[in-house]
Amino acid sequence: MKEKITIIKVGGKIVEENETLMQLLDLFAAIEGPKVLIHGGGRSATKIAAKLGIESHMIDGRRVTDAETLKVVTMVYGGLVNKSIVAGLQARGVNALGLTGADCNIIRAHKRPVKDIDWGFVGDVDGADGKMLAALIAQGIVPIVAPLTHDGKGNMLNINADTMAAETAKALAPYYDVTLTYCFEFPGVMRNPEDETSVIPQITTEYYSQLKEEGIVSGGMIPKIDNAFGALNGGVSKVIITRADAIDGTKGTHIIL
Amino acid sequence: MKEKITIIKVGGKIVEENETLMQLLDLFAAIEGPKVLIHGGGRSATKIAAKLGIESHMIDGRRVTDAETLKVVTMVYGGLVNKSIVAGLQARGVNALGLTGADCNIIRAHKRPVKDIDWGFVGDVDGADGKMLAALIAQGIVPIVAPLTHDGKGNMLNINADTMAAETAKALAPYYDVTLTYCFEFPGVMRNPEDETSVIPQITTEYYSQLKEEGIVSGGMIPKIDNAFGALNGGVSKVIITRADAIDGTKGTHIIL
Repeated sequence: MKEKITIIKVGGKIVEENETLMQLLDLFAAIEGPKVLIHGGGRSATKIAAKLGIESHMIDGRRVTDAETLKVVTMVYGGLVNKSIVAGLQARGVNALGLTGADCNIIRAHKRPVKDIDWGFVGDVDGADGKMLAALIAQGIVPIVAPLTHDGKGNMLNINADTMAAETAKALAPYYDVTLTYCFEFPGVMRNPEDETSVIPQITTEYYSQLKEEGIVSGGMIPKIDNAFGALNGGVSKVIITRADAIDGTKGTHIIL
Repeated sequence: MKEKITIIKVGGKIVEENETLMQLLDLFAAIEGPKVLIHGGGRSATKIAAKLGIESHMIDGRRVTDAETLKVVTMVYGGLVNKSIVAGLQARGVNALGLTGADCNIIRAHKRPVKDIDWGFVGDVDGADGKMLAALIAQGIVPIVAPLTHDGKGNMLNINADTMAAETAKALAPYYDVTLTYCFEFPGVMRNPEDETSVIPQITTEYYSQLKEEGIVSGGMIPKIDNAFGALNGGVSKVIITRADAIDGTKGTHIIL
């Protein structure tokens, strides 16, 4: 039987505000056994880009990444946000190591081809080196992963953090019994966005189709759940969507094949 | 006999200009055996700070690091410069891993106490975890170290890059036969700063005192050579000060106990 590993993905909103970040770090530090944290940082990137006079172009909530914007996200995700988390976890006795997919060539990607939209330096993932990542984790290291990687030609690339989490989880699936938890500001996928008691406890493939048809699942939730199913199809044992203060694995919406 | 390791420290000027960076990456990639790169990035930090409306205060060429400046150096050193080097080396087949001293708690430091000057979030190094660093290197990983670390209480700290290089070299001395090369824009320590043929081939402790008395060595060269002697006293085998295009170990000024 493979050892359990906990992979937590947290969005920008949580890691960019001091109070919620501290709470997250306390909860994450308390998780026993091997673990990985994947983080976003979009709000800080937008703020710092604006201060630098760089306009942020978003399409469907995703960032168009021109050369100047790439510098900003590399600074903010790979530097400011990542190292703040690393320092915060080290202070809590967690042996954190900040990584992008370029570090140790853990995530291989290519620049997204231009079709209808030129996304700029946005990456589509080709594969991940789970062996290298597993070797680091086996040394007691806790990877803190920024949503960035490289193209193998010397360029960094911006990667959607949900995708980064799914790819990291899949890469570790041959070595660990992986639980992937997506954290956001809600207690789970809700039938009624106004009613926090309407959390859907389980979503299967069939039920997912139905929820999409009914319009209950829409917008940014669709790529998130698609990533969740992708992870399960890639060998991940369990995927949960929940609020950042409820990462013990019992709450939220469980995605099931 | 311990295996040889090459530790190269390069200043900001080299890694911040594309042409010299590419040349450095080619030369660094060609070095055989275990290796580590420590980099600066001060010029980019000053530029980006200015764009963000943050004034850079320097004393004797070193940066006073208030809370806002700490964010800038964390972004620039830990994010932009570090990951550009990592991506560039990965493209050259080097298994680079970007690190600060906070990552894996490799460098432990404390905030410099306020005496005559309040340096802000500048660190004085307490020690380094050479064992962890050596374990990473033994896996074929090439650490790329940014001049940052943490205080163990959740704060990042700005560290002088020459000091970071000396501390990294000393930490590895129990495990490797270490050569530390400080690269800068000159071919070595020169008797006459106007004459590039006046490079001093060797500086011993005694000769160093004499050179300081004569005023031949002064200013920013003093802490650099002090760091070099510190490294030698800490078990480093060889310290060389040379130009970035001459890192084969034969040229420049050799510092000798």
